[in-house]
Amino acid sequence: MRISELSRVSGIPVPTIKYYLREGLLPEGARTAATQADYGGHHVRRLRVIRALVDAGVGIAAAREVLRSIDEPAAHPHELIGAAHAAVTPRRDDVVDLEDAEELAVRLGWRRDACDPTVLGELARALRRLDDAGFDVPAEVMTAYVDAARRIAEAELAHVPTDSAEAAVRYVVLGSVLPESVLLALRRVAEQVVSAERFGASRPSPEG
Amino acid sequence: MRISELSRVSGIPVPTIKYYLREGLLPEGARTAATQADYGGHHVRRLRVIRALVDAGVGIAAAREVLRSIDEPAAHPHELIGAAHAAVTPRRDDVVDLEDAEELAVRLGWRRDACDPTVLGELARALRRLDDAGFDVPAEVMTAYVDAARRIAEAELAHVPTDSAEAAVRYVVLGSVLPESVLLALRRVAEQVVSAERFGASRPSPEG
Repeated sequence: MRISELSRVSGIPVPTIKYYLREGLLPEGARTAATQADYGGHHVRRLRVIRALVDAGVGIAAAREVLRSIDEPAAHPHELIGAAHAAVTPRRDDVVDLEDAEELAVRLGWRRDACDPTVLGELARALRRLDDAGFDVPAEVMTAYVDAARRIAEAELAHVPTDSAEAAVRYVVLGSVLPESVLLALRRVAEQVVSAERFGASRPSPEG
Repeated sequence: MRISELSRVSGIPVPTIKYYLREGLLPEGARTAATQADYGGHHVRRLRVIRALVDAGVGIAAAREVLRSIDEPAAHPHELIGAAHAAVTPRRDDVVDLEDAEELAVRLGWRRDACDPTVLGELARALRRLDDAGFDVPAEVMTAYVDAARRIAEAELAHVPTDSAEAAVRYVVLGSVLPESVLLALRRVAEQVVSAERFGASRPSPEG
């Protein structure tokens, strides 16, 4: 199909598609004339993934790295997760104290040789922001966070598809990034549900 | 203290402090002269909270709403959580199909009358983004997400401080927003840990 048809099918404007082509997110179509190229179903599927990454707040450069990982189905699953995390983690130059983050990571089963230091740095920064705000997470709540993270990761990694290397890569890379907003939204719904159960759903009446 | 001293103590530049004053995030100091005001410890603490919200990606208008909730310690805990969520949830005009989100929410214990429709809309949008990307979360993984969200919310709401209404409000409002980045970072560390356990930490050697 031509680029106009690709735009119609995908719902993405032609100038945006051209931008993705220029940025190397979308592979070129097969050249059919000096100013025309032919696009196929894999371009439509790729556009859906690009939109999902961009909508999830992943920047263009990071999206390119994630897509590059998907395109290398021979890579090792453990490296792929690291590559996906590194791609969506902003590079930072500030030095951060890893002590508290390491302590939590060890509770997750972390060993010093097994993990990308970038994700540990992000955890350390997230903890520092709480600390800077003077906000203490009670120990039991932090334990609930750690347990939840471990259970989630176990369920996710237990379901890596085995039918093809490509499917496995896609699952591992996109599955580490895309469901984040689902998780946060579920937590907010759960907070409202549990607070309604604990504190009652309705405001005390003014007469009461 | 004067504004220059407040800047030194908080580490926040004077122009930024003046911006927060203009935007109504920080209360005015006690006027001591036409061009001078006196600031105290509560300004330092408030600045730490503002920075934490801004660093967590909360916009100025949303931060003002969150801070307004903190300043109303007489409010009902369940309403406060709703107010905090509404403040950090962007207003959207698009219509979204709530069916799948409602189904998940019901599994969390949700009843139609108990929750702010805004958070349900955000969950629906997060699910739609996965769907648009052609990414299926396996049913068992979604169950793990739902269970984790419920356990997290139960632990959080079980630890609302009871020593003062102000402390309770601060905990509920900030606690629903600030720990999000900690949770996401913990999940990423857990994914790396579990993938190392399942798939081995090191790449197969080229000779193998």
